[in-house]
Amino acid sequence: MKALAASLGDPAGIGPELLCEAWAARQDAMLAPFFVVGGEHLLAAAAARRGVDTPIVPIADPADAADAFAQGLPVLGNEDGEYFPGEPNSDGARLALASLTRAAALAVEGKAAGIVTGPISKALLAEVGFTFPGQTEFVADACRVAAEDAVMMLAGPQLRTVPLTVHCALAEVPGRLSTDLIVRRGRIVASALARDFGLDRPRLAFAALNPHAGEGGKFGDEEPRIIAPAIEALRAEGILATGPHPADAMFAPHERGAYDVALCMYHDQALIPLKALDFDNGVNVTLGLPIIRTSPDHGTAFGIAGKRIANPGATIAAIRMAGECAARRAALS
Amino acid sequence: MKALAASLGDPAGIGPELLCEAWAARQDAMLAPFFVVGGEHLLAAAAARRGVDTPIVPIADPADAADAFAQGLPVLGNEDGEYFPGEPNSDGARLALASLTRAAALAVEGKAAGIVTGPISKALLAEVGFTFPGQTEFVADACRVAAEDAVMMLAGPQLRTVPLTVHCALAEVPGRLSTDLIVRRGRIVASALARDFGLDRPRLAFAALNPHAGEGGKFGDEEPRIIAPAIEALRAEGILATGPHPADAMFAPHERGAYDVALCMYHDQALIPLKALDFDNGVNVTLGLPIIRTSPDHGTAFGIAGKRIANPGATIAAIRMAGECAARRAALS
Repeated sequence: MKALAASLGDPAGIGPELLCEAWAARQDAMLAPFFVVGGEHLLAAAAARRGVDTPIVPIADPADAADAFAQGLPVLGNEDGEYFPGEPNSDGARLALASLTRAAALAVEGKAAGIVTGPISKALLAEVGFTFPGQTEFVADACRVAAEDAVMMLAGPQLRTVPLTVHCALAEVPGRLSTDLIVRRGRIVASALARDFGLDRPRLAFAALNPHAGEGGKFGDEEPRIIAPAIEALRAEGILATGPHPADAMFAPHERGAYDVALCMYHDQALIPLKALDFDNGVNVTLGLPIIRTSPDHGTAFGIAGKRIANPGATIAAIRMAGECAARRAALS
Repeated sequence: MKALAASLGDPAGIGPELLCEAWAARQDAMLAPFFVVGGEHLLAAAAARRGVDTPIVPIADPADAADAFAQGLPVLGNEDGEYFPGEPNSDGARLALASLTRAAALAVEGKAAGIVTGPISKALLAEVGFTFPGQTEFVADACRVAAEDAVMMLAGPQLRTVPLTVHCALAEVPGRLSTDLIVRRGRIVASALARDFGLDRPRLAFAALNPHAGEGGKFGDEEPRIIAPAIEALRAEGILATGPHPADAMFAPHERGAYDVALCMYHDQALIPLKALDFDNGVNVTLGLPIIRTSPDHGTAFGIAGKRIANPGATIAAIRMAGECAARRAALS
């Protein structure tokens, strides 16, 4: 049985301590075996500081991870560093990048069942030569997939959302939307939810861009001009797609049961409802890749690192989801 | 003791039946006395159809409402119509407009303690000569207040939000925002929360426009150029103002306790979290008016009118809030 590979994230952030907590919670949370790439001594220090009983088990081969997982948290490789929580520096950023790079490579080579990436500081990583906007684009590149086809989905216990545009100014959003983009990403979402999430015919609900879905053209025309034609095209392919729905109404409790995923036109439209409903258990999943990749939906949180207060819910949820997706792919192959 | 005046809303919508439900719930919900303007027979029919025991008590003078309220739902005036739930027409729209017009006039003349407006169809009202974008602007005009100074606030049990721009295309939002607008509306919000909501020094949290609050200028410059200077100006006046906060993070459960009201840059930014958290009890309050005005934060819902399923929570909450605000103003005067 192949194990999942976890990257450390920035070693001065909350990533290392939460990986230790996740191992300690493995039985209650029913986690598939995972190992961390690098950080052997650093993780031991993080576990001690956190006060969690997580022995570190060095491994030389990813194939040893599943067995080692019963004894402790398996760690692969010699990349390591000092544990100074809350004090990020460029050595830490280099370690985070090395861990991410090798974890992704192991998944691409088929030596890991998928990857769970820890939170990094984009600014610090950029200083040590990281040229991608974020880890999603990095992982897509490692898979030789175009960045446009690596689709970010946020998943919480009550809601899944996909931002169809992500990191751009709000003023640029209308110009970035196109029928082609929506169709292309809609297809990827539908196929990934079927393959990796076990939803036979996933129901996709598309948000409108404008308030009240434009109220019949009074507040913008993107709904009839761009979004509705995309929904029609997806339906013509047999995909269950609805909308464009007024974005404020579609996240109300009694509406959320009507779809499996909400496809949103911009970052905050997708992230506001997800975090309002459940901040501590959100998982960021990348759809459309040949490998499985999840991540806890939070940042490095340098300010609370090493203080025993960071909530491990999202890290545990990210590992669990990656394991479930990997099991579905293994059953299909 | 002056009573609140309620307008019928569209008689084919869920407004009439919910007013009857609110009267029936008056004791448990601790509602201040209210009367409805018009619709005597229509309300009796709505109560019968709903199956709620709400006697209708005609009154000739608003001053009689508080006493009559003990016997039944007081109704002022002879404007009336047939009850055809789910079948809106222009007679109904005219009745809704007459009820709204007189209710607002009674509050302006000091004969009602405030108004609670029922849901209307803007499209139908426009057909019978209503020239305002919505009821908020109508009520502002009745008070001789500039529409820019009538500020919509949405209030639910867990959150209050103010959209600083409201009914316009998303593409127009960046151009409509200005430091002056934010300062002007911020002042109105701060003063209304102090006067009508009993918050001694209300804490105003301003959302950013761009994702991650622009991430240091990478995704738009409205935060340093427009929003931050407005916050500085408000602080200089002694108002407790913070931000601009990344909009996805500020609505998370552990952040919501840090402020009394979230001031948002556009409609859906304010409405998405409010409705996601609590769709059935949202109240729309107009701040900055000489009169008190609240409204349930939902539409006419023609599709479920007369079917005994519409939730009265928001109507009850709107009446309760108007009564509480009126009591605070009465205590101050």
